[in-house]
Amino acid sequence: MLFESGGDTREEETMKPFILKGTVVSAPTPHALEIVERGYLIAEGGYIVGVYPHLPSEYATCPVQDMGDSFILQSFSDMHLHGPQYPMLGMGGDMELLEWLSTYTFPTESAFSDPVYAREIYEKLATELVENGTTRVCMFSSLHGDATLTLMEVLERAGITGYVGKVNMDRQEGDYSETPEMSRIDTLKWLSHCDRFQHVHPILTPRFSPACTEDTMRFLGELAKERGLPIQSHLSENRDEVAWVKSLYPNCQSYYETYRAYGLWNHKTLMAHCVWSDEEELNAIREAGVTVVHCADSNMDLRSGVAPIRRMLDRGIPVTLGSDIAGGEHISVFDIVASTIKASKIKYVEDGTAPDSLTVSEAWYMATSNANRFFGEGAGFAPGNAVNVMVVSDAGVVSPRPLSPHERFERLMYRRRWDCIRRVWSGERLVFSREDD
Amino acid sequence: MLFESGGDTREEETMKPFILKGTVVSAPTPHALEIVERGYLIAEGGYIVGVYPHLPSEYATCPVQDMGDSFILQSFSDMHLHGPQYPMLGMGGDMELLEWLSTYTFPTESAFSDPVYAREIYEKLATELVENGTTRVCMFSSLHGDATLTLMEVLERAGITGYVGKVNMDRQEGDYSETPEMSRIDTLKWLSHCDRFQHVHPILTPRFSPACTEDTMRFLGELAKERGLPIQSHLSENRDEVAWVKSLYPNCQSYYETYRAYGLWNHKTLMAHCVWSDEEELNAIREAGVTVVHCADSNMDLRSGVAPIRRMLDRGIPVTLGSDIAGGEHISVFDIVASTIKASKIKYVEDGTAPDSLTVSEAWYMATSNANRFFGEGAGFAPGNAVNVMVVSDAGVVSPRPLSPHERFERLMYRRRWDCIRRVWSGERLVFSREDD
Repeated sequence: MLFESGGDTREEETMKPFILKGTVVSAPTPHALEIVERGYLIAEGGYIVGVYPHLPSEYATCPVQDMGDSFILQSFSDMHLHGPQYPMLGMGGDMELLEWLSTYTFPTESAFSDPVYAREIYEKLATELVENGTTRVCMFSSLHGDATLTLMEVLERAGITGYVGKVNMDRQEGDYSETPEMSRIDTLKWLSHCDRFQHVHPILTPRFSPACTEDTMRFLGELAKERGLPIQSHLSENRDEVAWVKSLYPNCQSYYETYRAYGLWNHKTLMAHCVWSDEEELNAIREAGVTVVHCADSNMDLRSGVAPIRRMLDRGIPVTLGSDIAGGEHISVFDIVASTIKASKIKYVEDGTAPDSLTVSEAWYMATSNANRFFGEGAGFAPGNAVNVMVVSDAGVVSPRPLSPHERFERLMYRRRWDCIRRVWSGERLVFSREDD
Repeated sequence: MLFESGGDTREEETMKPFILKGTVVSAPTPHALEIVERGYLIAEGGYIVGVYPHLPSEYATCPVQDMGDSFILQSFSDMHLHGPQYPMLGMGGDMELLEWLSTYTFPTESAFSDPVYAREIYEKLATELVENGTTRVCMFSSLHGDATLTLMEVLERAGITGYVGKVNMDRQEGDYSETPEMSRIDTLKWLSHCDRFQHVHPILTPRFSPACTEDTMRFLGELAKERGLPIQSHLSENRDEVAWVKSLYPNCQSYYETYRAYGLWNHKTLMAHCVWSDEEELNAIREAGVTVVHCADSNMDLRSGVAPIRRMLDRGIPVTLGSDIAGGEHISVFDIVASTIKASKIKYVEDGTAPDSLTVSEAWYMATSNANRFFGEGAGFAPGNAVNVMVVSDAGVVSPRPLSPHERFERLMYRRRWDCIRRVWSGERLVFSREDD
């Protein structure tokens, strides 16, 4: 693996266009993939210029990196994951949310008070994300400001861009909690150090409304407004949790109101799960322009349920995908796309009122283009998008006959060799490359 | 990878006991795993002697293979898969059963009329199975007798034991079907060659009752009775299929009766799926001693549904697990255990009448010990069981703290390195070993 150090090389690369040749697949709409065989993806200065079936004449003398039969794909955005839960990935699968949080999650996260430990773990996480083609994230850190800055630094060094939030959780007392005062002081202190990063930005992160005092919710809402900061949290994940929220916030009829009432509900808000969102909550999501992060693995593993994704899409709600490490166990967004489709299929069969299940094109669109949207970009490889690109090979996988590119692409979701991701770029940097290429 | 050739080595090994030291995990009951840390698994002549916390004195001078912190586990039995569908693994996931069969499956299987092609593909399949720790199977071949013998030969050479069946399908005319006469002639011819194999045995395999004429069903039932042969088929997989069977067999009230009426329903019968089996069918399964093969991935991928596994277990029905390649996409039975648990969790949440979901212990018991049962063996590493053993390492996976063996084992279902399976034995043979060990 290779983390380029930048410096001279980077400046040199900036001078010339970046051109990849291969089978370019992207999702400009949810309904059909755009596939350009033996096509050219061109970028300059870390931003996409376009995808072309033939090399445009103005680039005729430029070097082209020919990836042969391999796919050239958008690398992944993981729109909901918890960095400090990485060490407990795959554990506690026989428990539901609230028991799992107290038994596994809080003790695991509390260890990130140690910045040396935090760095060690976050470097492993960043490596594994990049190896799996994930170059953008919206990530929860722990409640520790220092470890959050470490996480941001490690991600930026690895070439991962996006948003990271120090978690606020000051409502319950316990081994892993803050006082309301410290929650606010640490948040401001953390924010004051974030301008040292170029590509990883802060996002306000009340853990979920039952973990925060109303004063802190209000404080975060004001901060969001003053500074134009985005917001991420959890919404309507589990039935017991929904009931608990109702008991804690008697003035709010519905879970989403606990965010809206404090200024944490707008078009820069990202809400994970929304499994039990009712019609009213779905309408409120659409009206405010909130982005939903669907976490199919986590919602199955923690017996939360299956979110009504088709109903959200039909309303025009932008749904993105998240691993929800460590509620979900899959780091590869290929696996997450497959789990998203599987979950939608079971919902279709088991729930008498469910409309049709999701297709590969739709799930891929959610995994890539809807994430672009949250980052202010166009769908697919739209001109001007930051380079988030990976080369994926399906060589060595047996086929029954010569396959169409669409069939080969669809198969990638379900079946790949462990070393199928060959190269990954983020902006102007090659952030991962298999040694033998 | 290493396929030992037997010969002198094998005879020499027979002379001395085979002793592995490590963390031995097995499932003697569905309710709890048996875990012996730093324990000894002892076998002689390809059969288990027992698991011991200390080396018994009579073995004190024998060589011990110390596997360190690695797990010593039962290798896997895949109780339902289609060998000739291996090339189409991961394809056609946006279709349901009957469309998927005609679009992908039948054309793919028909290519196995070519025995050279069959050998090439089956060698790749056998390699991938063994690398994934699968050493026993109950497998569907295609309708071709020659290719079925090739499959049996290839499996036996790879060290995979169990049952393989030439498929019968003579009801519909088409590019991939038999006449009733050829179905019977080819079945008898295939059976006449099966005694050349030591560890892979024939199993009668009507594809499913809508694909067979009643004469052929009757012929197979008589053959099962005369020769004491086991039977495998499909049952109540998909709602459209169940309706189709009803229209084809007007004398049968329920799908299972189409097997029972022709002598294909007894304690040597293996039925895949049973997603839509009603109370009557579940009772008939239990009374006849039929073994169910649950194929969670396939049932999700083809939108068949989720089989009522808890209800089956509560009735005492022996449920085993299958990949159902290529309806399911996972070859690793670790993945299949995880999918089994996930599917049961969604059923628990979505189906208002579903009892509790499955635990890791229960799913592991189904994957290993219930398969033993079908092969006439005891649960777990019972004395006298054939050696089906693998060494699995979780080294290199980050942990939040020192984990108990149970926690480490549970995590294996959800999170493993791609090279975690280090060695695999079948009978007296080491059939797989990672080169760097």
